[in-house]
Amino acid sequence: MDLTKQNCEACTIDAPLVDEKRFNKLLKDLDGWEIIFGDTNILSKTYSFNSYDDSVKFSMDIAKLAEDEDHHPAILLEWGSVRVQWWSHKIKGLHMNDFICAAKTELLAK
Amino acid sequence: MDLTKQNCEACTIDAPLVDEKRFNKLLKDLDGWEIIFGDTNILSKTYSFNSYDDSVKFSMDIAKLAEDEDHHPAILLEWGSVRVQWWSHKIKGLHMNDFICAAKTELLAK
Repeated sequence: MDLTKQNCEACTIDAPLVDEKRFNKLLKDLDGWEIIFGDTNILSKTYSFNSYDDSVKFSMDIAKLAEDEDHHPAILLEWGSVRVQWWSHKIKGLHMNDFICAAKTELLAK
Repeated sequence: MDLTKQNCEACTIDAPLVDEKRFNKLLKDLDGWEIIFGDTNILSKTYSFNSYDDSVKFSMDIAKLAEDEDHHPAILLEWGSVRVQWWSHKIKGLHMNDFICAAKTELLAK
C-alpha cells in the first residue's frame, strides 16, 4: 500500500482510529517516525537541518501539504530542526490520514 | 526603553542573564508574554488565528526576523495558533536579546 498515492478523507468524530496492532506494519514504511503514546497517540518525527533556510522551506512545504489535505499537523521549527507531529483532533488519536500525511512529509524531506 | 529599536548583540557563553528582578518591568511592555521558569527560563506567547494562511505568514515573518537578528526561537505552528518561544541557548536562559525579539514579534503580530 503506497500511502503517498492516497489522500486524506474527511475525518468525523465517529471515524475509526487505526487499530494499534497495525502500527508496526504502518511504521515500517515510515523511516524514523515514532508513535508517542498518551491520552492522544501522536505520530512524530524530528528532521535535522544544517541551514535555517532549509528548515523554514521544509516547514512551509508541510504547511502547503496541510492545506492541500485539509489536515494540519504541529510543526515545531527551531534552529537546526523541524519536528512534525500528526494526529486527528476529532478522534483524539491516529487515523489513516495521519499515516498518509507522514508518508507525504517523507516525500517532501527528500 | 523601546526594545523594538534595539538589535540583538552577539551572545557568548559568558554573556549576562537578565536579572530575574527585571522580569516584571520588561514584561510590562510585552502584552501576553509569560516566562516559563525551568532549568532554562523561556519567554513564551501563543497567538491565535482564525486562518491557517495567516498563521503560516506570521510564522514566516518570525523566521525572517530570526535571520535578521541571527537569533532563532522555537515556533510551534498548529491550526489556529502559533506559539513563539525565545531564549538564549548559549547562556541557557534569558538575555536582553530575547526581550528585544519578543517586542519585535509583537510588532509583526500587529
